[in-house]
Amino acid sequence: MPKRNVYLSDIPLDEARATLQAALEAANAAQPLPAERIPLTQALGRVTAAPVKAIRSSPHFHCAAMDGYALRAESTIFARETQPLRLRLGIDAFPVNTGDPLPAATNAVIMIEHVNPEPDGSLLIYAALPPWQHVRLMGEDIVATETVLQVNHVLRPVDLGALAGCGHAQVAVRRRPQARIIPTGDELLPHDQSPGRGQLTEYNSLMLAAQINQAGGAASISDIIGDDPDELTAALNAALDEESQLILLLSGSSAGAQDFSAAAISRLGDVLVHGIAVRPGHPVIIGMARGLPIIGVPGYPVSAALTGELLIAPLIRQWLGLAPPPASQVEAISTQKIASPLGDDDYARVALAEIDGKLQATPLGRGAGVITSLVRADGLAHIPRFHEGVDRGGQLQVALLRNREEIQQSLLIMGSHDPLLELLATHLRLSGGGRLVSVNVGSLGGLLALRRGEAHLAGTHLFDPESGSYNTSYVRRYLDEESVQLVTFAHREQGLMLAPGNPLDIQSISDLRRARFINRQRGAGTRVLLDYLLARQGIEPAEVAGYAHEEHSHLAVAAAVADGIGDCGMGLRGAAEALSLDFIGLDWERFDLAIPRRFMRLERMQALLATLRDAAFRDELGAQPGYRSDATGNFVNRRAFA
Amino acid sequence: MPKRNVYLSDIPLDEARATLQAALEAANAAQPLPAERIPLTQALGRVTAAPVKAIRSSPHFHCAAMDGYALRAESTIFARETQPLRLRLGIDAFPVNTGDPLPAATNAVIMIEHVNPEPDGSLLIYAALPPWQHVRLMGEDIVATETVLQVNHVLRPVDLGALAGCGHAQVAVRRRPQARIIPTGDELLPHDQSPGRGQLTEYNSLMLAAQINQAGGAASISDIIGDDPDELTAALNAALDEESQLILLLSGSSAGAQDFSAAAISRLGDVLVHGIAVRPGHPVIIGMARGLPIIGVPGYPVSAALTGELLIAPLIRQWLGLAPPPASQVEAISTQKIASPLGDDDYARVALAEIDGKLQATPLGRGAGVITSLVRADGLAHIPRFHEGVDRGGQLQVALLRNREEIQQSLLIMGSHDPLLELLATHLRLSGGGRLVSVNVGSLGGLLALRRGEAHLAGTHLFDPESGSYNTSYVRRYLDEESVQLVTFAHREQGLMLAPGNPLDIQSISDLRRARFINRQRGAGTRVLLDYLLARQGIEPAEVAGYAHEEHSHLAVAAAVADGIGDCGMGLRGAAEALSLDFIGLDWERFDLAIPRRFMRLERMQALLATLRDAAFRDELGAQPGYRSDATGNFVNRRAFA
Repeated sequence: MPKRNVYLSDIPLDEARATLQAALEAANAAQPLPAERIPLTQALGRVTAAPVKAIRSSPHFHCAAMDGYALRAESTIFARETQPLRLRLGIDAFPVNTGDPLPAATNAVIMIEHVNPEPDGSLLIYAALPPWQHVRLMGEDIVATETVLQVNHVLRPVDLGALAGCGHAQVAVRRRPQARIIPTGDELLPHDQSPGRGQLTEYNSLMLAAQINQAGGAASISDIIGDDPDELTAALNAALDEESQLILLLSGSSAGAQDFSAAAISRLGDVLVHGIAVRPGHPVIIGMARGLPIIGVPGYPVSAALTGELLIAPLIRQWLGLAPPPASQVEAISTQKIASPLGDDDYARVALAEIDGKLQATPLGRGAGVITSLVRADGLAHIPRFHEGVDRGGQLQVALLRNREEIQQSLLIMGSHDPLLELLATHLRLSGGGRLVSVNVGSLGGLLALRRGEAHLAGTHLFDPESGSYNTSYVRRYLDEESVQLVTFAHREQGLMLAPGNPLDIQSISDLRRARFINRQRGAGTRVLLDYLLARQGIEPAEVAGYAHEEHSHLAVAAAVADGIGDCGMGLRGAAEALSLDFIGLDWERFDLAIPRRFMRLERMQALLATLRDAAFRDELGAQPGYRSDATGNFVNRRAFA
Repeated sequence: MPKRNVYLSDIPLDEARATLQAALEAANAAQPLPAERIPLTQALGRVTAAPVKAIRSSPHFHCAAMDGYALRAESTIFARETQPLRLRLGIDAFPVNTGDPLPAATNAVIMIEHVNPEPDGSLLIYAALPPWQHVRLMGEDIVATETVLQVNHVLRPVDLGALAGCGHAQVAVRRRPQARIIPTGDELLPHDQSPGRGQLTEYNSLMLAAQINQAGGAASISDIIGDDPDELTAALNAALDEESQLILLLSGSSAGAQDFSAAAISRLGDVLVHGIAVRPGHPVIIGMARGLPIIGVPGYPVSAALTGELLIAPLIRQWLGLAPPPASQVEAISTQKIASPLGDDDYARVALAEIDGKLQATPLGRGAGVITSLVRADGLAHIPRFHEGVDRGGQLQVALLRNREEIQQSLLIMGSHDPLLELLATHLRLSGGGRLVSVNVGSLGGLLALRRGEAHLAGTHLFDPESGSYNTSYVRRYLDEESVQLVTFAHREQGLMLAPGNPLDIQSISDLRRARFINRQRGAGTRVLLDYLLARQGIEPAEVAGYAHEEHSHLAVAAAVADGIGDCGMGLRGAAEALSLDFIGLDWERFDLAIPRRFMRLERMQALLATLRDAAFRDELGAQPGYRSDATGNFVNRRAFA
């Protein structure tokens, strides 16, 4: 087993960047890359390496700006409405189409609508023409030698047209920065192979290569190197001989794995930075060998992605002569308290929604391993070093990861997360109705989020033993019932999820006394239902082993049962069947969407309601195991909404 | 000569779009394209064709979340600070690195920092562990069957990582829409050949192909077809047999050329729209043949680009399942009156600058042939049908063509345009100092723009005969001298630009009586200087033939002389030499930058001033023919600026 690494020397992000820049400058590798000349047909998105000047004027000869006849203006000075002038075709006047060069000795064009052709082929005109009327003069658009495009400019479709128009067939662009990516780790398997127990899919190389390519570089990925110092040193040595600008050593997930990277860099060059005070991401390594920068990237995917965003993409752009990737910065209100270590630059992925005209940010899972937080994020909030975090309701600086328009068309649903809300999202999206963003905080959490104005709608399936009904009494208690519309999403079959074959022969709630249970979190509708069913049987929570083990979704409970952490959990038939568990149905519950009435008239909410009532959606929903859609789209509390 | 076409039937843009959609629906070609499965390594930027669900949970086994030792939590319940518990390595406790699977029968991890290894290989621990501490449970990130990505989603680097992480090596994406582009026109030459007089470079195909590729399609370009109905029909017929989604017929520049396209479409299918009430762009054709849409694109480049933006890119995105390209819409104040035809949707390219906290839009050249307006535009202003245009100071709706941050870092210089302001822009850009945007309105126009708060600075070279000095008295007259800082850009040699060899033997101002002169526009510094020199010689403007022929830049005057439109003009030595003209120097003038003091402290203005005083820039500027840079960067009116 290698030496275990305890981080002693995290340095601030700014300092790490400065160290890297100083080393690049010392190695004469901080400047934009030299140029290569490429055909315009391949130049879209490439970056100009020098200002581009016109080789040819445009137009490069005087030409007609209208369809008509070219003539000499001086010959028309006596033409009058009352005294038309006769011009001889081919002698005094020459037919021209727009773009045609002016025939010799002509200097004006009369529009075809303004002449009267005579039967003998001559023309009558009724007014004098000023010289150069309806003529595009040579160089009117651009004169040879004028600058058409600046240096360090990303070429767009119109730029290609302009370059061709002023005489260029090729353009000098920055070479693409080349990056070599070397993934390391005994436990890693390429992403196109199926991992066994203890093996992990290596996908950071795929993600970082795409980040590099998107920034304008060209990444190539080596085979995975095991945790063998000699093998890694040999691979690094070979990479240093290539014609690349950057080498990335991707670590496996363990802290110890970083040491292999650092050791290999030390053997061939210098480790300049080992540990950056950034969360998530600490164990970043920056080294130099033979004038080439080497970045050791941490293994956790969220840390790896952040390293790519903060260090690698800006470096690629620097070599292209571009500023760091532009990110629209916005201010948003945090819907949660975010604690942040004082010494770190802390980055949190957030979901964004515009609610009541305010942009609100809800932090997603903070774990460095939660790659779904990368996928779901609308923005990256930055809590700078020496700040202690942000309170609920506090201001957050957020770099947008999605364009503002898309965020403005999003509906944020908090509360209980039903897996088939994604089916609703799909149908909504296919109908052009915008984006449904779901944050799972449990049924009660969703109603409280509505009360605080943090969501557009909430998913809720809260059973009230007193009234024997779902949701209504809770809305009355936690919100103002008049101000909220309940719309049914579906009826769902709740029950006991059991290991395949039901080895403990559990048949009802009372059997829970002899099983290890997996529970849902406080405030979840399923937990409320369980507590009701236990109470009805006179069973105390303390009698249920595992009552304190909380999971946050149906599928998480199902996964825990599937994996033998517990024997039994309560949840949806759909989740049980998805993971091939046995299932004993207990009840059909009503899952409603609670929608504040002030949001009902939003165009995107109307689109959501239309999708809920769409026959194709309801049919597909009702066909899922454990779902009924006969009440889908119904207004539960119908009055009051004018 | 073909039949000349007079447009009778322009229909509104909305109606044209609806006609196209109806025809696509009738041909069953309005829906997103079917899927193809591709490896993740090729999927960046592609669009998902279906929601993607997790195949494997992540993590797919319980694993250590820390480096340390895995053990059974229940075995630790009696451990106390005062009463450490001894665990046997390999029996009670097992070393694990982050990411390692938990050994059988263990359910918690203790961090390496929290144990005390004994010399005999056993471990001492000092506190009880709860079950599942520092364990990432199977499915904690994502559970198999959960939806990872929605349909119609553009794949980003993190998405590729997430897909690989939950078991995918391939992904189903929309096929790329294929477009066939057929350029037509006798006068056109491919852009990699050198056009003679009367020939025009065909570059619309290059621009439209890039627009299509950028939107996510795949364009291929045919050879240019001459204005021959049979040849064009044959080419269209062949294209209809290909497996493409869209055919574009690009017309030459003449109005008549459109008729060939319409005729060819009519022979093989139907012309649905011939003329759309859009400016610029009128002569757009929409047709259908054998179920394939055909768009006839007008020949003028600005019209062609707009057709691509309004009709073609949205169609490509529709086939990918995406909404029209997102454009950030902003409100801006128009610095000029824009007249707009009542019946048209009118689109004007504008330069944008943020001045005194307000976003200001300055329309660029409106001609449909002015491709440089495409290159220089920061935004596309839309004046809807049934609006009569916008007054100076009125609100404009502008779609951004450049990101907002870049616009915020731009300095807008109006006034006289010196060609070497582009050299300043290059040095500024290379130093990371932002963008210098130049709009040429003449020296006086620039001072007036400053007065109205429409520019950050103005280029001026206005000679005052009374004081014998440059610029200062004009600033005093048109602005408040106290509030403006004059900074010298360069001294420039003004003189007479003459046809090569000076055939008329012109030696001085008095010889202008016997030459056809090319003048500059009213308010231009060069015009002021000319008037002074003429007056000094006692020459009346009426004595100078061509005094009324106005051009708007030094290079435009030089081009007019080079092309024989006139015999002589006044302007810069640099412009004369660029076009190989003879030159007789008359005077060295001072070209200053007038900068309102309130802008002096802007970071980007400070960067500009630093660049002006940078030795490398001054050396390069001073080495240009007709320029001196010994006073470059000097403050002309020094006092008052604290």
